[in-house]
Amino acid sequence: MTPRSVHIVGTGLIGTSVGLALSGRGVTILLSDRDPARVRLASELGAGRPVDGGSGQRVDLVLICVPPSEVATELIRVQNLNLGVIYSDVASIKAKPQQEAQRLGADLSVFVGGHPVAGRERGGPAMARADLFLGRPWVLAPTPETSSAALEAVRALVAECGAVPVELDAGAHDTALALISHTPQAVASLLAARLTDTDAATVQLAGQGLRDLTRIADSDPDLWAQIAYGNARPLAAALGGLAADLARLAAALDAGDEQGAAAFRAVVAAGNAGRARLPGKHGARAARYATVPVVVSDEPGALARLLVHAGEAGINVEDLSLEHSPGAPVGLCELFVQPATADALAAVLTERGWVVHHAEGADSDG
Amino acid sequence: MTPRSVHIVGTGLIGTSVGLALSGRGVTILLSDRDPARVRLASELGAGRPVDGGSGQRVDLVLICVPPSEVATELIRVQNLNLGVIYSDVASIKAKPQQEAQRLGADLSVFVGGHPVAGRERGGPAMARADLFLGRPWVLAPTPETSSAALEAVRALVAECGAVPVELDAGAHDTALALISHTPQAVASLLAARLTDTDAATVQLAGQGLRDLTRIADSDPDLWAQIAYGNARPLAAALGGLAADLARLAAALDAGDEQGAAAFRAVVAAGNAGRARLPGKHGARAARYATVPVVVSDEPGALARLLVHAGEAGINVEDLSLEHSPGAPVGLCELFVQPATADALAAVLTERGWVVHHAEGADSDG
Repeated sequence: MTPRSVHIVGTGLIGTSVGLALSGRGVTILLSDRDPARVRLASELGAGRPVDGGSGQRVDLVLICVPPSEVATELIRVQNLNLGVIYSDVASIKAKPQQEAQRLGADLSVFVGGHPVAGRERGGPAMARADLFLGRPWVLAPTPETSSAALEAVRALVAECGAVPVELDAGAHDTALALISHTPQAVASLLAARLTDTDAATVQLAGQGLRDLTRIADSDPDLWAQIAYGNARPLAAALGGLAADLARLAAALDAGDEQGAAAFRAVVAAGNAGRARLPGKHGARAARYATVPVVVSDEPGALARLLVHAGEAGINVEDLSLEHSPGAPVGLCELFVQPATADALAAVLTERGWVVHHAEGADSDG
Repeated sequence: MTPRSVHIVGTGLIGTSVGLALSGRGVTILLSDRDPARVRLASELGAGRPVDGGSGQRVDLVLICVPPSEVATELIRVQNLNLGVIYSDVASIKAKPQQEAQRLGADLSVFVGGHPVAGRERGGPAMARADLFLGRPWVLAPTPETSSAALEAVRALVAECGAVPVELDAGAHDTALALISHTPQAVASLLAARLTDTDAATVQLAGQGLRDLTRIADSDPDLWAQIAYGNARPLAAALGGLAADLARLAAALDAGDEQGAAAFRAVVAAGNAGRARLPGKHGARAARYATVPVVVSDEPGALARLLVHAGEAGINVEDLSLEHSPGAPVGLCELFVQPATADALAAVLTERGWVVHHAEGADSDG
């Protein structure tokens, strides 16, 4: 059932990474790309061997790793050449390419849409990693015509890459991505955009919260224009919903201080609940880590020393965040650890001379 | 001109930190609080000495460090007792307490509103730090009646604490905070709240972007209800503006793919520009750091070893972020460094056996 031969069309980050992941598992990989330099690099990295001529032998599975807008025409092309038994793609938008493929007359019984959700990818075969998909969700979006054999073959391929198959239909996928990926991008960009006509004194007052919320506002406008193009309607719905939520909260605040405060309290409480649903590490539900805040001087090696001391105590730091005050020679580093280890970590660090703050309940004088 | 004696009313985090900062500079500090245990702790920490009885000697400056809703009545009380020459406060809302003080008949010629913007405070005197204000903005909001002598005295006090005085009128302060602090909180909470009625399969697809955007959604609903109460109108205006921006983008996406893509591109580009205005470290404009992505195994000490190796190369890591894939035994750590040092860092880390990714331009197959 697992495909033993795969033709990867498009040797960018995703295509090359799939090649690396499968080559290591004994699968025969053929590589092609309209750019011969990319195929050569992918092949040299060990992702497979370039096809000779335009086609190559017929394989168990053809994986189309091209931009969303080119998936449908590429599917038609490789099906016309009869390059494979089963076909899949990796584009981050699913409904539109599928509709286009249907319109163009592709054989959808042997096609399964796919989308490896592999984090913030940067481009090109040189960035490829055999472990890119380890433990990451990989959405499988079968068409209504897709045969169960085709679905099982692609599912096996995804598992072979170390990813976690998640079956969703194309529309549900696009709606989900609109909410959890495309809407956050819009919000971050709009918030950051508000700073362009804000006076410098105001901008100067910005703290870590605003920084967290606008980090992804550094993204590439052209890349996002493509995504918006491919997912316009679901994204419009998600943004419209959030706009209505915001307008409702604004109206409550306008109606009076008491009403506004009550509405704001309810929103923050609902946010607490929603946040708790985000997956934590290792696929578990979000663990509420304990925080150990430590003062760290802003010089080479200071943060390293801190983590060495934590490591020597055998305590795994799950995450950390740095808070910099403009102009300050010291920063506050918050170490996130399993709650059971927080006290021990604080004790060890204090003993090693670190200034460890002890978190208490929120104070009302801030 | 610099106050040589200060009476701090309210020994929470801010009050006690001011005491610690000024005690070290030879200023006489008196402490009072309705909770005798808090005064005792603040005093033991070296923040000053408790006043005997309810009043104590007349000081150069009385600093009122109580919640926003209590500032006005406290100002009246201490002015009636004639405790000081000049008066200030540290509440995070400025207009409302000032209006209330005026209504109650306070002498505003000797009063200057203040707000040290000292990051994510956690509560209580035990969390206090002499260096809490180092390099941080401290807003001074004089009233129309405030004398220049009073303003200069408070400005000197703020400088003595190591903070950067930023003069704004009360309304401008509240409008600024609504935009850069209170609106981000509302957005983060509303985004996170949307996850409560989202199916588990969708939530499972969440990546680092959504995590960044919802981190502050873990905040305390009661604390934020107070802030919303104190700043309802400016906050309503800021939220209404953002709601309109979102609705406009949603409408463009609804109108057609081309229009939607163009609008989204423009929003992301505007966000790039706004983000660039955020202050960087040491008061400088946001430096565009270079990123060095490194694969780190999820075990105690791995991150420490990485930073030790960076430190040994004499390279200062300005910031870092960790990307965890659910279920993955390895994570991607992005080290943010001065662009000039990125290549050297990548070389050193590669030499030490780390798997360093080389960032390239964005790829279109993600």
